[in-house]
Amino acid sequence: MKITELVLHPIAIADPPLRSSYGLHAPFALRTVVELKTDSGLTGFSETYGGDGPLAGLEAVRARVTGMDPFQLAGLWRDLSAEAEREIAAAPGGRSQTFLVPGENPLDRHARTFAAIEIACLDLIGKATGKPVCDVIGGRVRDRVSFSAYLFYKHGGGGGVGGDAREDEYGEVLSAEACVRECRQMIAQYGFREIKLKGGVLDPAMEIASIRALRAEFGASYPLRIDPNCAWSVDTSVEVGRALKNELSGGGYLEDPCATLEGMGEVRRRLLAERNDTPQASNVAVTCFADVPRARELDAVQIVLSDPHYWGGMRNVQQLSHLTGVLGMGLSMHSNSHLGVSLMAMTHVAAACPNLTYACDTHYPWQTAQDEIVEGGRVKFVDGCVAIPDKPGLGVELDYDQIARGRERYRKIPFRKRDDEAEMRKHVDPAWKRVLPRW
Amino acid sequence: MKITELVLHPIAIADPPLRSSYGLHAPFALRTVVELKTDSGLTGFSETYGGDGPLAGLEAVRARVTGMDPFQLAGLWRDLSAEAEREIAAAPGGRSQTFLVPGENPLDRHARTFAAIEIACLDLIGKATGKPVCDVIGGRVRDRVSFSAYLFYKHGGGGGVGGDAREDEYGEVLSAEACVRECRQMIAQYGFREIKLKGGVLDPAMEIASIRALRAEFGASYPLRIDPNCAWSVDTSVEVGRALKNELSGGGYLEDPCATLEGMGEVRRRLLAERNDTPQASNVAVTCFADVPRARELDAVQIVLSDPHYWGGMRNVQQLSHLTGVLGMGLSMHSNSHLGVSLMAMTHVAAACPNLTYACDTHYPWQTAQDEIVEGGRVKFVDGCVAIPDKPGLGVELDYDQIARGRERYRKIPFRKRDDEAEMRKHVDPAWKRVLPRW
Repeated sequence: MKITELVLHPIAIADPPLRSSYGLHAPFALRTVVELKTDSGLTGFSETYGGDGPLAGLEAVRARVTGMDPFQLAGLWRDLSAEAEREIAAAPGGRSQTFLVPGENPLDRHARTFAAIEIACLDLIGKATGKPVCDVIGGRVRDRVSFSAYLFYKHGGGGGVGGDAREDEYGEVLSAEACVRECRQMIAQYGFREIKLKGGVLDPAMEIASIRALRAEFGASYPLRIDPNCAWSVDTSVEVGRALKNELSGGGYLEDPCATLEGMGEVRRRLLAERNDTPQASNVAVTCFADVPRARELDAVQIVLSDPHYWGGMRNVQQLSHLTGVLGMGLSMHSNSHLGVSLMAMTHVAAACPNLTYACDTHYPWQTAQDEIVEGGRVKFVDGCVAIPDKPGLGVELDYDQIARGRERYRKIPFRKRDDEAEMRKHVDPAWKRVLPRW
Repeated sequence: MKITELVLHPIAIADPPLRSSYGLHAPFALRTVVELKTDSGLTGFSETYGGDGPLAGLEAVRARVTGMDPFQLAGLWRDLSAEAEREIAAAPGGRSQTFLVPGENPLDRHARTFAAIEIACLDLIGKATGKPVCDVIGGRVRDRVSFSAYLFYKHGGGGGVGGDAREDEYGEVLSAEACVRECRQMIAQYGFREIKLKGGVLDPAMEIASIRALRAEFGASYPLRIDPNCAWSVDTSVEVGRALKNELSGGGYLEDPCATLEGMGEVRRRLLAERNDTPQASNVAVTCFADVPRARELDAVQIVLSDPHYWGGMRNVQQLSHLTGVLGMGLSMHSNSHLGVSLMAMTHVAAACPNLTYACDTHYPWQTAQDEIVEGGRVKFVDGCVAIPDKPGLGVELDYDQIARGRERYRKIPFRKRDDEAEMRKHVDPAWKRVLPRW
């Protein structure tokens, strides 16, 4: 089996006016759907970040990938990494993505490019062997994967803030009460059993109130996590950690409260000194393997967020699962606005990671059935879980009419890069800038 | 594809009277050849440790393995590990194998059992997909794998010391001169470009002389390593490290000079204080993943010795390659008396490990063409390397006449367990005991 063609489909999908410390989601999120056609007649798929940058990264490997045997992945990873290491060594300021939205860090571009190819190759291998991808990469340790409710503060959309953004069933969420309502709606529909709140948007006191309201509503059997994406100072992080000591215990965590491993290490030391061992998670200060032992040494991070899209694909996430297990760290999974192909990739790799200690994040509830590119429509959740389908590869096929629809929307809109700051200036505050720490 | 039958072939193979700090090799080494038959008509192979212990371990998983899908490996590893963790937690003295010959540590029995099943399953998957095993597990990063000349001090065999042991082309090797001769013979036949001497046998001054003689004969382009299997005290280790500073530099290492990570850490500190950064390798103080970060913390070990047979199979060796890479450590590969099936398993996994920084050990030159169980005879070395065959799976088939011969020899001999100490008492010194440190 040889790859004969790499087909890239840049698409745009409706995205509600979600808020984070990065700013405001634009009315459309960008994705790229990758097809690898082969001389065997099989086609493999993957879904990755969208816009000009990720497309250019994939175009750059077109010649390398065309003619490649889809089993020969380690050589491709070695070559792309070696190139990247030279760029990273020459880059000022190292690899941190504190100031970059996921998918826009030039220093993990090689990992994102490789992942998109690797996942499509694993889909191909699964189809060629008649096996689900999770079994191709070593075998599942679970048949279904648990995801968490991923709550956002948000504007109402429609004609209001967010301009041309779609109106959704969740409406405006800018208070503790609205947060509880959003969560209730989401759990009723998907059955999630863990809850994550994207913070760093409102005054910390209001976010504390949101978490407390969620605990009051759902009880201790729904673990809670809050992720302000580095919006807080060390002092504020300690204050929030102190205020939410009970609410974040028992399977919850504090995710990237402040910037840098050093900052998180200080928060950890100060909380431990108060006998508060709320674990800290990160996908901002820890974005590549070299960050992991350093995070462990500083005791800054106890839970690493994986993500096949930017950690270099599924086998690298398995390596991360193993590494964190050996170092006595936990593992969770990060997400970004995505459709069903990405969801299935996340599900397969999660099924094949023994050390996965939390329900995975997913933005899936924020996307719509109208935009789904998977044949047969949206992937089903049961009790907050996605089951491994009894089908080869990722277990989904593309709906090419929907791909055409997504491509057409991409063609029509002006966005070619995620820029949440610009979106804030356009719709909320003309002077808005991302300032760290904000509180 | 389902596994329908697990077939175990206990065999005995001639072994010369090799010496080490464990004692003396018996005239026969024991191996077990594993066959997994499937409902697809394909059969997968592996080769592992021999004798009653390994056989009992494999018998214990017969029911679990029969009916299993060979792709479902992670679940088997999880189940066997969970069981083992309970035993290990209850075991006095932890996991160290300082006082145990490889293959006889009850605390990694689960890893050895799993490996034998995993490798045969990967052979099956390769055969089912038409791919070499190295490509099934992620893809090769090299097409041929470099091995080192593995020199032993030894008796002459034949009618002499070693009793009924076979006479070989190397004769007695108990001096520096004989060592050089042995190495010259082995390099002429196999083309090795790195040299390992099994030490811990003669007085350290004589072993230092052997290493110096090898350097004088072969020059600095042949990196040198010495492995006394913990025979030395910390003081002696430092003295040898000091004496061989030049000879072990430039791609060589000092392997398990003394017992325990703490001991090796002290040797390291004392050598570094003399500006001697000879790296230390281990397969005695580091035998499971939990040992690796501890070895790194103490700076006791800079190079970990992998081995698919006792590290839990090929994918676990890939994890070890990744882990050591992330921690900035080197990786080499340990070996034990083995035939062609094991050699091919070692070659495939080595081909798929990006972070493999040294030529692998192999005992292969010490076994004979008469005992080879691989169809077509002994595996070929070119320039010290074994190439990945352009064939599915491990790339070798079994010669069933040779298996029958090995089984018959196994039936006839009294050994059911490797016991190098008993062998020393029988042939060399009736009072011999393994004492650590000996010097």
